[in-house]
Amino acid sequence: MTRYGAQFGPDITFLGVDPVDLDDADALAAADVVVLGAPWDGGTSHRAGTRFGPMAIRSTDYLPHDGSRPHLALRVDALQDLRVVDAGDVLMPPGEREVAMANLEAAVHSVASAGAVPLVLGGDHAVALPDATGVARHHGFGKVSMIHFDAHADTGDIDFGSLYGHGQPMRRLIESGALRGDRFLQIGLRGYWPGPETLAWMASERMRSFEMTEIVARGLTDCLDEAFEIATDECEAVFLSVDIDVCDPGHAPGTGTPEPGGLSSRELLDAVRRICLELPVAGIDVVEVSPPYDHADITAALANRVCLEALSAMAVRKRGGLVHDPAGPLLEGR
Amino acid sequence: MTRYGAQFGPDITFLGVDPVDLDDADALAAADVVVLGAPWDGGTSHRAGTRFGPMAIRSTDYLPHDGSRPHLALRVDALQDLRVVDAGDVLMPPGEREVAMANLEAAVHSVASAGAVPLVLGGDHAVALPDATGVARHHGFGKVSMIHFDAHADTGDIDFGSLYGHGQPMRRLIESGALRGDRFLQIGLRGYWPGPETLAWMASERMRSFEMTEIVARGLTDCLDEAFEIATDECEAVFLSVDIDVCDPGHAPGTGTPEPGGLSSRELLDAVRRICLELPVAGIDVVEVSPPYDHADITAALANRVCLEALSAMAVRKRGGLVHDPAGPLLEGR
Amino acid sequence: MTRYGAQFGPDITFLGVDPVDLDDADALAAADVVVLGAPWDGGTSHRAGTRFGPMAIRSTDYLPHDGSRPHLALRVDALQDLRVVDAGDVLMPPGEREVAMANLEAAVHSVASAGAVPLVLGGDHAVALPDATGVARHHGFGKVSMIHFDAHADTGDIDFGSLYGHGQPMRRLIESGALRGDRFLQIGLRGYWPGPETLAWMASERMRSFEMTEIVARGLTDCLDEAFEIATDECEAVFLSVDIDVCDPGHAPGTGTPEPGGLSSRELLDAVRRICLELPVAGIDVVEVSPPYDHADITAALANRVCLEALSAMAVRKRGGLVHDPAGPLLEGR
Amino acid sequence: MTRYGAQFGPDITFLGVDPVDLDDADALAAADVVVLGAPWDGGTSHRAGTRFGPMAIRSTDYLPHDGSRPHLALRVDALQDLRVVDAGDVLMPPGEREVAMANLEAAVHSVASAGAVPLVLGGDHAVALPDATGVARHHGFGKVSMIHFDAHADTGDIDFGSLYGHGQPMRRLIESGALRGDRFLQIGLRGYWPGPETLAWMASERMRSFEMTEIVARGLTDCLDEAFEIATDECEAVFLSVDIDVCDPGHAPGTGTPEPGGLSSRELLDAVRRICLELPVAGIDVVEVSPPYDHADITAALANRVCLEALSAMAVRKRGGLVHDPAGPLLEGR
Amino acid sequence: MTRYGAQFGPDITFLGVDPVDLDDADALAAADVVVLGAPWDGGTSHRAGTRFGPMAIRSTDYLPHDGSRPHLALRVDALQDLRVVDAGDVLMPPGEREVAMANLEAAVHSVASAGAVPLVLGGDHAVALPDATGVARHHGFGKVSMIHFDAHADTGDIDFGSLYGHGQPMRRLIESGALRGDRFLQIGLRGYWPGPETLAWMASERMRSFEMTEIVARGLTDCLDEAFEIATDECEAVFLSVDIDVCDPGHAPGTGTPEPGGLSSRELLDAVRRICLELPVAGIDVVEVSPPYDHADITAALANRVCLEALSAMAVRKRGGLVHDPAGPLLEGR
Amino acid sequence: MTRYGAQFGPDITFLGVDPVDLDDADALAAADVVVLGAPWDGGTSHRAGTRFGPMAIRSTDYLPHDGSRPHLALRVDALQDLRVVDAGDVLMPPGEREVAMANLEAAVHSVASAGAVPLVLGGDHAVALPDATGVARHHGFGKVSMIHFDAHADTGDIDFGSLYGHGQPMRRLIESGALRGDRFLQIGLRGYWPGPETLAWMASERMRSFEMTEIVARGLTDCLDEAFEIATDECEAVFLSVDIDVCDPGHAPGTGTPEPGGLSSRELLDAVRRICLELPVAGIDVVEVSPPYDHADITAALANRVCLEALSAMAVRKRGGLVHDPAGPLLEGR
Repeated sequence: MTRYGAQFGPDITFLGVDPVDLDDADALAAADVVVLGAPWDGGTSHRAGTRFGPMAIRSTDYLPHDGSRPHLALRVDALQDLRVVDAGDVLMPPGEREVAMANLEAAVHSVASAGAVPLVLGGDHAVALPDATGVARHHGFGKVSMIHFDAHADTGDIDFGSLYGHGQPMRRLIESGALRGDRFLQIGLRGYWPGPETLAWMASERMRSFEMTEIVARGLTDCLDEAFEIATDECEAVFLSVDIDVCDPGHAPGTGTPEPGGLSSRELLDAVRRICLELPVAGIDVVEVSPPYDHADITAALANRVCLEALSAMAVRKRGGLVHDPAGPLLEGR
Repeated sequence: MTRYGAQFGPDITFLGVDPVDLDDADALAAADVVVLGAPWDGGTSHRAGTRFGPMAIRSTDYLPHDGSRPHLALRVDALQDLRVVDAGDVLMPPGEREVAMANLEAAVHSVASAGAVPLVLGGDHAVALPDATGVARHHGFGKVSMIHFDAHADTGDIDFGSLYGHGQPMRRLIESGALRGDRFLQIGLRGYWPGPETLAWMASERMRSFEMTEIVARGLTDCLDEAFEIATDECEAVFLSVDIDVCDPGHAPGTGTPEPGGLSSRELLDAVRRICLELPVAGIDVVEVSPPYDHADITAALANRVCLEALSAMAVRKRGGLVHDPAGPLLEGR
Repeated sequence: MTRYGAQFGPDITFLGVDPVDLDDADALAAADVVVLGAPWDGGTSHRAGTRFGPMAIRSTDYLPHDGSRPHLALRVDALQDLRVVDAGDVLMPPGEREVAMANLEAAVHSVASAGAVPLVLGGDHAVALPDATGVARHHGFGKVSMIHFDAHADTGDIDFGSLYGHGQPMRRLIESGALRGDRFLQIGLRGYWPGPETLAWMASERMRSFEMTEIVARGLTDCLDEAFEIATDECEAVFLSVDIDVCDPGHAPGTGTPEPGGLSSRELLDAVRRICLELPVAGIDVVEVSPPYDHADITAALANRVCLEALSAMAVRKRGGLVHDPAGPLLEGR
Repeated sequence: MTRYGAQFGPDITFLGVDPVDLDDADALAAADVVVLGAPWDGGTSHRAGTRFGPMAIRSTDYLPHDGSRPHLALRVDALQDLRVVDAGDVLMPPGEREVAMANLEAAVHSVASAGAVPLVLGGDHAVALPDATGVARHHGFGKVSMIHFDAHADTGDIDFGSLYGHGQPMRRLIESGALRGDRFLQIGLRGYWPGPETLAWMASERMRSFEMTEIVARGLTDCLDEAFEIATDECEAVFLSVDIDVCDPGHAPGTGTPEPGGLSSRELLDAVRRICLELPVAGIDVVEVSPPYDHADITAALANRVCLEALSAMAVRKRGGLVHDPAGPLLEGR
Repeated sequence: MTRYGAQFGPDITFLGVDPVDLDDADALAAADVVVLGAPWDGGTSHRAGTRFGPMAIRSTDYLPHDGSRPHLALRVDALQDLRVVDAGDVLMPPGEREVAMANLEAAVHSVASAGAVPLVLGGDHAVALPDATGVARHHGFGKVSMIHFDAHADTGDIDFGSLYGHGQPMRRLIESGALRGDRFLQIGLRGYWPGPETLAWMASERMRSFEMTEIVARGLTDCLDEAFEIATDECEAVFLSVDIDVCDPGHAPGTGTPEPGGLSSRELLDAVRRICLELPVAGIDVVEVSPPYDHADITAALANRVCLEALSAMAVRKRGGLVHDPAGPLLEGR
Repeated sequence: MTRYGAQFGPDITFLGVDPVDLDDADALAAADVVVLGAPWDGGTSHRAGTRFGPMAIRSTDYLPHDGSRPHLALRVDALQDLRVVDAGDVLMPPGEREVAMANLEAAVHSVASAGAVPLVLGGDHAVALPDATGVARHHGFGKVSMIHFDAHADTGDIDFGSLYGHGQPMRRLIESGALRGDRFLQIGLRGYWPGPETLAWMASERMRSFEMTEIVARGLTDCLDEAFEIATDECEAVFLSVDIDVCDPGHAPGTGTPEPGGLSSRELLDAVRRICLELPVAGIDVVEVSPPYDHADITAALANRVCLEALSAMAVRKRGGLVHDPAGPLLEGR
C-alpha cells in the first residue's frame, strides 16, 4: 500500500512528525507509533463531518508543528522520545464501506505486524471494527482487551438496515472473536441507547460497562482500578478506543451524537494518561470529532491532546517509568 | 382549546410521542404527562430566541424520533411506560403578553385537572407564572412547593416598567398566594442580581435559596437533602422549574442571560433524577433555551435530556420503584 | 414500500403538505407532485452534511407550515392548486450505497409510474443517477432531456476509486442510455474540474454546457433560449436537476463544494420559473444543501424557494397559463 | 421624556454623534436629524433578535466612532454638515406592546414637531406604525407619502391573533388615515405572502407595489422614476422605511424572515441615495436587523451604511445640491 | 495623557461606571480602582482577536449598564462601594509594540502612583509586562508578588524572533527585577510548553508553578493555601494576572491558545474571590479573551465576572471584612 | 533566507505545488511564479485574523491538493503549464513590524530578481508596501504601474499614530517613488474614508480611482478599458493588488473592514482574468482574508480562485494566447 496522503485537503502529518509509507518495511520496523487517518463518516447515524476529523486532529494545536511536544508534567517529549511517524490517510471512499473498511484493516494490520502501535484518527466509530481487528490479527484473536471510552455502547445489531454503522462495531468485534466480551471495558455510557435486548446480549457476553451514574457514585479512579484488573487478566495487550463524545458536550461539542452528562476533558486526559502508563497499549483510536460542529475548534484540540497524552505516557513506559512525579510540584527545588 | 400545533415551524411532537388535543377529555384523562410548548420570549430582559425553544427541545436528539427512550441506568422507557402525549404549542402571540399568559395558564390547568403532569417547554421564564399557577389552581393554592433551578432568583418587582418579565414570575407566584414563599426552594443562584431590597423581600417570605458558594461548600447532595425536607412539609405536590441557565455557560451557552460559575450538566441531570424519583412532582417546566445562541445544539440537547431524566424517574415511581441500582454495574452478572 | 418517515429528526412534510405512503396507489394516482427526501451524503467528495438537506429544505420557511403558498407574482397557490404530497425520506443507510440508490430509484419510479412528478430533496448529487433513471424508466430511455444547474459537470469517471460519487452521476446516466448526451443541458459550470479528458468525452457525447463566462457574455436569457430548443427536440419530458452550488457561495454558502463566481439567487429563481412555465418537467431534484455550513439558514431557504418556484410555475401550466403578467404591476388598477 | 439611554448594553450613540435628551427643546430645535433606537422584537413572526438591532446599527463600523463620516462620492460629511444627534433608545419593554408603541410614537412625534427628521433604528417592522404615525401627526394625515423597501407587503390584517405584528403596520397606517394607500410605494416584494384577499385590499387602496419580477424586467431605475412621481403628487413629505430583508439573504442574512431573490446591497444603497437626494424625506426607519443571525456582522454593517447614505444625501440637499458628480471620476484632474 | 477613549468601537466604560481622564489627578486620587483597556493582540502567537477583548469584557453582561452590581453572596456592590472609574483604552497601535507597551506601562504607573488599583483588560498576555512593571515601579521592584492563572508559564525566552510576545512577559518581569521569581505563583499550567530548558530556568528562579495534575491530586484549595503563604512573605502587595485560558476550553473557548484540561469557571471565580479577600491586591489584569472565537460570548462573560468577583472581594476588604458568610444560606432567617 | 515554512499550523503549499527555498537560486530561476505567505495582521485597523489568511488561501479548495488545476474556460492548467512553487511563509513576528516588513520585502525582491512573479498571500494590506517595493526594486522605481482592487484607497497618512498600518501602504509607495501616483489605478472604492485632505493629496498625485458609483454608471468593462490604457503608458510591468474587501460583504464576509456595496465575486474574477490576460503582470498580492470571520470559508475560497484565475490567465499569456474562446460554448462541436 503506497502512501495515499490526504483524502481531504493538504497532506500534512500529525504535528509535523515524519511521513511514512506503509510499503516501506524498514521505516515501519523502526517506528514505535504509526499515525493513520481514517476519514470515514459513512457510519454516522446522525451528524456527519468526521471525515474531516483526521485533518483536524493532526493540525489543531497552537504550537509550532515541529514534531516536538515536551509534556510538562511527565517530562518526556513523545514525538522525540518515541519514533512517531504518520502514514497519512487510508483511502476510504465516501459511500464505499466495504473497500474502505478493508483498506483500513489492512493498514492497521501492517502497522501492528511491524511491531508498532497504530494510532488511528477517526472518522466515525465504525472504524473501530477494522482498527481492533487489525491489531487482534497480529496479537491473536482473544488476546487483546479493550478499554472503550464512549457515551454509547456501540453494540447495536442492525441500524438503518446495516450491520456496520458507528453504533455497532463493538458487537461485530465480539461476534467475530477478535475481542472477548469479558475483556471489554466500557467507560462513560449514558443516555437512552441501547435498549434491553442489546443490554441482555452485552450481559451475556460478560462485558463490563461503567455507566456515568456508577462513575459519579464511585469515582472514576475506583472504576479504572477495577477495569485495569480485568483488562490484564489473560490478555497481553490493550486496545484503547476513545470516542470523544465520552466527554460532556460542553467540552466536546463537535461530535455526531452528543449526549449530555459526560466526563470533563480533564477527567478524560487523566484517565488516558493512567491507561498508557500502566497498561500495555497496542493500538489506539480517537474518533467522532466532527469539525463542522466544532466552534473555536475545542473538540479537535481535545482529541489532539488525548493523542499526545497517550503518546507521552507511552514514552514514559518506553523510558522505564516516571522520573518526575506528575502530581508533585512542577519545578525542582520548591 | 383545539390543538394549535406549532407556532414556528412544523408541527412535531416531543421525540415522536402521540399528539393530543386539549379538547379531547378522554385522551387527557388517559395521559400521565402532557407536553406543552410555550414559545414565548416576550419576557426576556436580554437575548431573545427562546420562542424557538419548544421546537428545539422537542427535536434535538440524534436517536430516531420513535416515541421510545429506554433509560440505560434506570431500566425504564419513559415514553412507553408512561403515557406521554404532546399537545403542541400554546398560542402565544409575540408581543401580546396578556393573551399569551392566559392561554398558557388555561392549557396547564386543563392538563393538571385531567390528572396528568404538564411538562412545559419554554420559552423564557415568564412562563413559570402561568405554569405554576395552572398547577396550583388544581392542587390548591399553597399546596404545591417549588423546586427552582436557576442562576437568578426571578423575584424582581418591576423590570423595564413591567411586572411580568422573565425575572419576576417567582415573586408574582408568591404574591398571588399560588405558592408559599416558605416552600420555595431555589438552587444555583449566583451573580449580581437581585439587590438587597429584593433579597430582604425574599427573606421576609422565608424562601430558601441555595447560592452556588453554599452549594460548593456543602455539596449539592446535602443541599438537596435539606430542600427535599422543606418541599414535602405540608405540601402534597412539587413543581419543578428548570431554567437551563442554572448550568454553567460552558454547558448551556444557548440561553438569554448566561451567568458564569454554574452547575455542570451532569449535576443537573443527577439532581433532576433524584427529585423525580423521591418527590411527588405535579408539574415541570424547562425554560430559557435560546437556539440562536446554541452552537452545535448542546443546550437544546441538555434540555431534552432534562425532560427525559425527569420522565424516566417518574416512570420508575409509577412502576413502584427502582429494580436496578443506577449506581451499580450497568450489566447483570458483572 | 411503506412510508419510512424521516431518517434524521422528526417526520415532517414539505411545508405541511399531506403525507403519503408510496404503497398507497390511490393516493399516488391522485397526486400531481410527490416530494421524496434523499438524505444521502455518502457521495460527497468534500464537506458532508447533505443528509440533513431534506429536513432543512422541507422546513426552512418563516411562514406557517400550513400547506399553502400563494405566489405573489404568479397568482397561484402551488400547494393548493396542485396536489402535492410528501412520501417522507427514502431509506438510505449511511455507508450503504447500493441499497440506498436502489431504494431511491424504486421510489422515484413508483411516483413517475403513477403519473406524478417526483420532487427529490437531496442529499448530494449522487442521487441524480437514481432520480433521473427512475423517471426515464417510466418515460423511456432517451425520451427525457436534462436541464442541469451546477457549478460542476458531474461527469467524472472514477473518483476516490468509486464510480458513484456526487461528481459522476451525469456520466452514468448517459452511459446507461437513460439520458441522451445531446439532450443534456448544463448551466453555470465554472472552475477547475473536470480536466480535458472528461471534457473530450462530454464533447463526444454532444452535451451542451454553458460555462459562466459564456453566460456573462451572452446573458442567461439568451442561453436559456438555446437550451430550451435543444431540450424539446425529440424529447417529451424534461428532468430539472438543481445543484444549489450553481449559485455563488455568497448566496449559497451551505453546500459541499462551493465554487466562487456563480449565479445570484434571483437569477436561479427566474430561470427555474421559466423552465417550469415553458417546458414539460417530469422530474426535479434539488440537491447539495449542507445545513452544517449554512449560517442563518440562507441556503436551505433558497432551496425551499427553488422548489416553490418550480411548483408554482407547474401550477400555472396546469391551470392553462398565466392570468397575471409577473413582470407587470403587482396590483390591479395601477 | 428624559433620556432613557440603552435598553440593552451600553449607552452609545450612532457612530459617536452627540447624545440628546428629548426633553431638551433647544437641542431638538437645533437638530437636523435625531436618531432613535426602537429595540422591539415583540412583533416578529419568526426569528427574534431585532431588539439588538439599534445597538448593532449604531456601532457596526470599522472606522473610529468620532462623529464624522465624509462620503467619498458625495463630498459631504453627513455627521458634520448636518446636526445629527442621538436620543438613545425609546423605552420599549419586551412583551408590553401598547406602552412600547405609545412611547415610540411620542418620541418620533417630538422629533418631527421640533422640525427634525427622525431616524429610527429598529427593531422589527412593527415599529413603522408608530414611526410613520408620529411623522404624519406633525405633517398632517395624508400629507406624507411612503417609500417602503421590503420583501413583504406588511399589509396583513390579523396574524397570530394580533393586529400589531411586524407584518401589519402598513395596513394599520392606511386604515388610520395616517398615510394614503395611493401614495404608498413598495419596492422589492416577492415570495409567498400575502394571499389574494390581502392583495385585493391593497389594490382597492390603490397601493403601488413593485414585485421583484417587475423590477428585474424594467430595471430598478425605471421603477424608481415611476415611484418618485407618485410620491410627490399632493404630498409634501416622504417617509422612507427600509426593511433590510429587501436585500437578498446573501447580502442581509441577519434578519427575521429572509426571502431569497432580493436586491443587492449596492442596489439598495444607490436607491436610498437617490431618494434622499431627490425627495423631501421627513422620516426614516431602518428595521429588521437581527444580530444573532448576522454572521460577521454584514447585515448590521449594511444597515449602518443605509443610514449614512441617506444622511449624506440629505446633507447634499441641505447644502443646495451636488458639487461633485458621484458618477464621474472620484478625483479632480483625471 | 488625555483620555484616548476607545481604540475599536464606541467609547464605553466598564458596565457604565464613570469615565476618567488619566490627566485628572484629583479624579485618580479619589479612585479605588481604575479600569484600563489594553487592546493589543500583537503578541499573540496564534489566534488574534484579543484587541476586541477590552470592549467585550466591559460590555458583556445582560444586566443594565448602570454602574451597580450587588454581589449576591458577598453583600457588597463593588461598583458603588468602591470608587471604580474607567480610563478607556490606552493607545496601542497595532503593529507598533514599543510605543504600545510604553503607553500602557505609563498609564498603569499613573494609576498605581495615585494610590488606585489598576484593572487592565487585555489584550493578549504581552500586556502583563507593562502592567506588572507599572505597579512594581510604584511599590518597589521586588516588593510585589505575582499570582498568575494560566495554562502557560509565559516564561519563554525568544519566540518568532521576538522577546516580547504573549508567551514571554513573565520572564521579562523577573529578568528586569520588577518581580521576584521566588514570589511568582503560577496556577493551572498544563500541556506541552515550555520545554526543559525553560523549566530549568524557572526552577533556578525558584518559581512555584502548580501544574493541573498537582492541582487535581491535592485540590485547588490546598494549592492556594501554599501559594498565599509564599505570596505574602516579604512582599507587601500582590499582582493578580488572569489568563482566561487557565479555564478549560469548554468554559473559555474564545481565546488564542486554548489548552484542554483546565479549571472550571466556578473554580476560577472561587479562587479569585479568595485571593482578593485574603491578599493585598495592588494590580490586576484579565487577558486573552478573543471575541471572534467566543460563540455566545461566554468567555467574555466569564472575564467580566472575574473582574466583578475581584472587585467585590476588594470591596469587602475595604469595608473591613465579611458581614455575611458566602458559604451559608443566602437569605437571613433560614 | 532558508525556508521558514509555516508561521501558523502545518507547512503546506498552495494546492500542493512544490515547495521551494528562497536560497535555492536554481529553483527560483526555474520558476514562473513563487507563492509567498505573509501572515501579518499587525497593520489591521479593526478586525484581526488575516495572519491565518495564507494558510486559508493555500488550502481552501474542495479538489485534491495535487498541484493541478485545469481551468474550464481557458483550457490551461496553471499549476502545470506554469512552474509555480511555494516558498512558504515569510517570518513576520506578530508585533514586530519593522523586521516583518523587511523580511517580506527581501523575499519578494529575491523572487522578482530571479525573474519570477511573486504571488503574495496576505495578511493585511500593510504587506502591499514591501510587496510592491520588492517588485519595483527589480523593475525600477516608477516602472511598475499598480492596479489596486479595494473598497479603500489605503492612502492614509497617519493612523493610530503609525505610518505603516493597512490603510497607508499606497501612500508610502508613492512617497518613496517606488510607484508613480499617475500610474496608480484604484477600482472599487466606496464608503466614508479617506476625507478631503487625503483625497486632495491623491488628486495632486494624479491617481485614478474608480469609485463604485462611477463603476455602476459606466460599467466595469469600460472602467477597466480606461485603466489598462493608463497602466501601460510608460510602464513595463503591472502590480496587481487585490484586497478581497473590494467585493461586497455578502461575497466576502471574512475580512477586517467590510464595506457594503462592492463588486460581486463574478465581477472580480472576470476582471482579474482580463488583467492577467492583457497586461504584463509582474507581481500580485491577495490580501485581507480573515478566517475567523469567514463562515463556511467562502472568502478564502474566493481568494483561492482569484489566485487561480490570475495564474490561469498568465499561463495563457505564456502559451501565446487563447486557443479557446472562454465566452463561447464550452464544448467543441456544439
